[in-house]
Amino acid sequence: MKYSTNLLTQDSYPLPQNLDDSKAIESFLSRNKDKKVVVIQGLGFVGAVMSLVCANAFTEEYAVIGVDLANENTYWKIKSINDGVFPLIADDPKIQELYDNSKRQGNFYATYDPSVYKHADIIIVDINLDVKKTSQDDGSLKDFDVDLTGFKAAIKSIGSSCCEDVLVLVETTVPPGTCINIVKPILEEELNLRGLTSSNYKLGHSYERVMPGPEYIDSIREFPRVYAGCDNKSADAIESFLKTIINTSVCDLTRLEHTNATEMCKVLENSYRAMNISFAIEWSRFAEEAGVDLYKMVDAIRVRKTHANLMYPGIGVGGYCLTKDPLLASWARKSFFGSDEDLSMSVNSVSLNDQMPNFAYKRLISVFGDLQDKKILFLGISYRGDVGDTRFSPVEGLVKSVESSGASTFLHDPYVSYWDEMDRNIESDINKLINLDLDIIIISSGHSEYKMDETVNKLLNLDSIQIYDTIGLLNKEQISALQLKHKVSILGRGDI
Amino acid sequence: MKYSTNLLTQDSYPLPQNLDDSKAIESFLSRNKDKKVVVIQGLGFVGAVMSLVCANAFTEEYAVIGVDLANENTYWKIKSINDGVFPLIADDPKIQELYDNSKRQGNFYATYDPSVYKHADIIIVDINLDVKKTSQDDGSLKDFDVDLTGFKAAIKSIGSSCCEDVLVLVETTVPPGTCINIVKPILEEELNLRGLTSSNYKLGHSYERVMPGPEYIDSIREFPRVYAGCDNKSADAIESFLKTIINTSVCDLTRLEHTNATEMCKVLENSYRAMNISFAIEWSRFAEEAGVDLYKMVDAIRVRKTHANLMYPGIGVGGYCLTKDPLLASWARKSFFGSDEDLSMSVNSVSLNDQMPNFAYKRLISVFGDLQDKKILFLGISYRGDVGDTRFSPVEGLVKSVESSGASTFLHDPYVSYWDEMDRNIESDINKLINLDLDIIIISSGHSEYKMDETVNKLLNLDSIQIYDTIGLLNKEQISALQLKHKVSILGRGDI
Repeated sequence: MKYSTNLLTQDSYPLPQNLDDSKAIESFLSRNKDKKVVVIQGLGFVGAVMSLVCANAFTEEYAVIGVDLANENTYWKIKSINDGVFPLIADDPKIQELYDNSKRQGNFYATYDPSVYKHADIIIVDINLDVKKTSQDDGSLKDFDVDLTGFKAAIKSIGSSCCEDVLVLVETTVPPGTCINIVKPILEEELNLRGLTSSNYKLGHSYERVMPGPEYIDSIREFPRVYAGCDNKSADAIESFLKTIINTSVCDLTRLEHTNATEMCKVLENSYRAMNISFAIEWSRFAEEAGVDLYKMVDAIRVRKTHANLMYPGIGVGGYCLTKDPLLASWARKSFFGSDEDLSMSVNSVSLNDQMPNFAYKRLISVFGDLQDKKILFLGISYRGDVGDTRFSPVEGLVKSVESSGASTFLHDPYVSYWDEMDRNIESDINKLINLDLDIIIISSGHSEYKMDETVNKLLNLDSIQIYDTIGLLNKEQISALQLKHKVSILGRGDI
Repeated sequence: MKYSTNLLTQDSYPLPQNLDDSKAIESFLSRNKDKKVVVIQGLGFVGAVMSLVCANAFTEEYAVIGVDLANENTYWKIKSINDGVFPLIADDPKIQELYDNSKRQGNFYATYDPSVYKHADIIIVDINLDVKKTSQDDGSLKDFDVDLTGFKAAIKSIGSSCCEDVLVLVETTVPPGTCINIVKPILEEELNLRGLTSSNYKLGHSYERVMPGPEYIDSIREFPRVYAGCDNKSADAIESFLKTIINTSVCDLTRLEHTNATEMCKVLENSYRAMNISFAIEWSRFAEEAGVDLYKMVDAIRVRKTHANLMYPGIGVGGYCLTKDPLLASWARKSFFGSDEDLSMSVNSVSLNDQMPNFAYKRLISVFGDLQDKKILFLGISYRGDVGDTRFSPVEGLVKSVESSGASTFLHDPYVSYWDEMDRNIESDINKLINLDLDIIIISSGHSEYKMDETVNKLLNLDSIQIYDTIGLLNKEQISALQLKHKVSILGRGDI
């Protein structure tokens, strides 16, 4: 028997033997009579929270059902939702508030039964769509491809049981052209196979700009949103739906002319950010070579409004989106629109970002020398400050390089207790690590805890060590104080 | 005998037979006794205006001498300044005001005599430093190199006559590392050759952010500025000088730790902008392929503060700086700092930008078909709206492609009477061109005149033609109106 382990409680649940959950679903729906039914496909970082947002819509009472697969990775989320524990830890108190509210209202249920789509008035697609990358030894991009198999299967599963007048709203970040080229034909084929009309359904794309962290919920509900339908009736239906869950008094809904445009808008947005980060990465290496401080230069340049998005250097981009979205775009350009050219700026951004752990490692050994038998503490493994998200964290590559050079590593993160990708437990109490007779401390995530004077004072109390700030977390005064006792090196800051 | 032709008046002046202008210089200085002498090397777009700014310093009265070479291209500027006509046409009324004021004060003189540096307390280097590019047929970058010969000669000419305690302030955009690796050794060698002390001079770098146009003067005097000296006494001297000409009550002076940093800061700033433009260019092609409107997407994305610098598409970058500065940076990285890697994002930016006239041309013929025997009017040849600056204008490449395909072209620009790079007279009265039984009108510069309803109404009065807006100048209403009668195509906007 297979099990799915709850990442929050470590409880294990046997996977269900058959996927028929219809009794529970019907009972849930009978308690939510006369409510429109919203089914969310995918209970990940977006889908789980989008479910809460729908269950707490501003101007409509929905019966909300979250669906995911009954496998080792995801079944526990379904179970946890129905058992009364929301399957995400987040700094945003609104998450718990909305979840508690949905429990009181009894209008949120989770299931693994794919036949659930037949009850849906609205289906929201929030599943993942990954890029398969292969890399050179230095981390740079060798090749990449997009495998739509899983995505197509998910759409097919909708088409094989949905009503003929359903609204399907894709929120997943997809290669531009996906709604028209992939989703539409699959839905229509499945409807036709069941002898249903394939002209009444509504289909469109709208993307959230969700940002896990202290404003998780508001990053969905109070953030401008772009949408498009495959036809006017679809666009109108999406607009009506979005108006029930988005606070349009504080943010705009923008209708674009075609789903190609909304799909492109999303990957464009993320490519822009990935590009800005990779630009800073390349110049940080130049600054180190020329022995000058890129942070100060960026400060001097950002006074210009036209240059306000110039980024500070750092260990590079991480997370689920920026590491792949530029590639989704370039892939679509060739695969759906017949171009023989990549989006070179965007592809190169990913490649440069992917090399960053390697650059950070090279800089480490060039400044601090051989790491053999050194004891090295990493402060932070998350790719983003004050968030416990280790997906594609650049810290992973740096930890691996450091370990392969013969050093012992110690890992701290206040937001992560278990590092899934590396299969390691993570210590959250810095006091348990700081006195281990360390040689080097690497500041690798921008968590607020590390900036606090309390933490810096702990570093000051240590005997002479080496400190490597890979993200420019320390301020001028802190660096000056630390330099009196320790050797301090900042990525992107050379020394002449 | 050789002549230099005044580009404003078309008057021709014979070049001086010998370079001794000492009598006139001494007479000028005797009329400006007790004033510190500022010599500006280079009377181009920056140096000429910088001279005015120094002659009109806020808190000091300087005797200002502009120097340039006595050759066909530049001698007329020297002559014109001394004859009472400032050699630049600009929208900024302050140019004339400051020039008139310097005439009243009698504290601004121009010369070609290289011995003038011996009188200088302060020498400001405002000469050009070019990149030599070679291109593929499609415009993309094949190779590039920086030839420092002219720059070195200019510095040598300073060193061979300057005082031993002079302040040399380089404002030219140079490859990072130039002050230390090139200027400093040349100055010291020349001082030593003359038996002078090579430890008393002061040297540093500070860059302006001058923007030809309606705020030409204020873009120097009221814009934050970065500076650095080769040592502390140099940095202090530069700071004192800058405080006399910059309005520090409205903008900051930022001292960086090294001239490498200020030099890098400038090319970083311009590389960032070139990158943003080339990013928009690449995505505009994708948008066209996917049949969607990039302008609308950019509007939808720029609501995010983190994405406010995302650019609209267009025919690409032009001008003297953005087309070369990213290459100066990459060249320096390899030549001065031993890296074996280019700044790939920056180099690719230039390459993509350089291809833009070719992309714009391809789009033109794909939408409007064969151009053989077509009559085509270009609205604008300047690379920038409301400015008459044709240096490296992308319009040049598009005009050439259009002509080589067998079309007749007509060129309009309200700010340019003579197109130097193409050796053509330019018509400034649109009425003389608009009724020539045109086939296609290409909007190629963002001059305000073209946006005015008066101009759009002229287009509406024509019989059915084709209109190609390469810069997104027309607004939604204008496009809708024009489309009722004409075929309109916007670069970066596909049609599904």
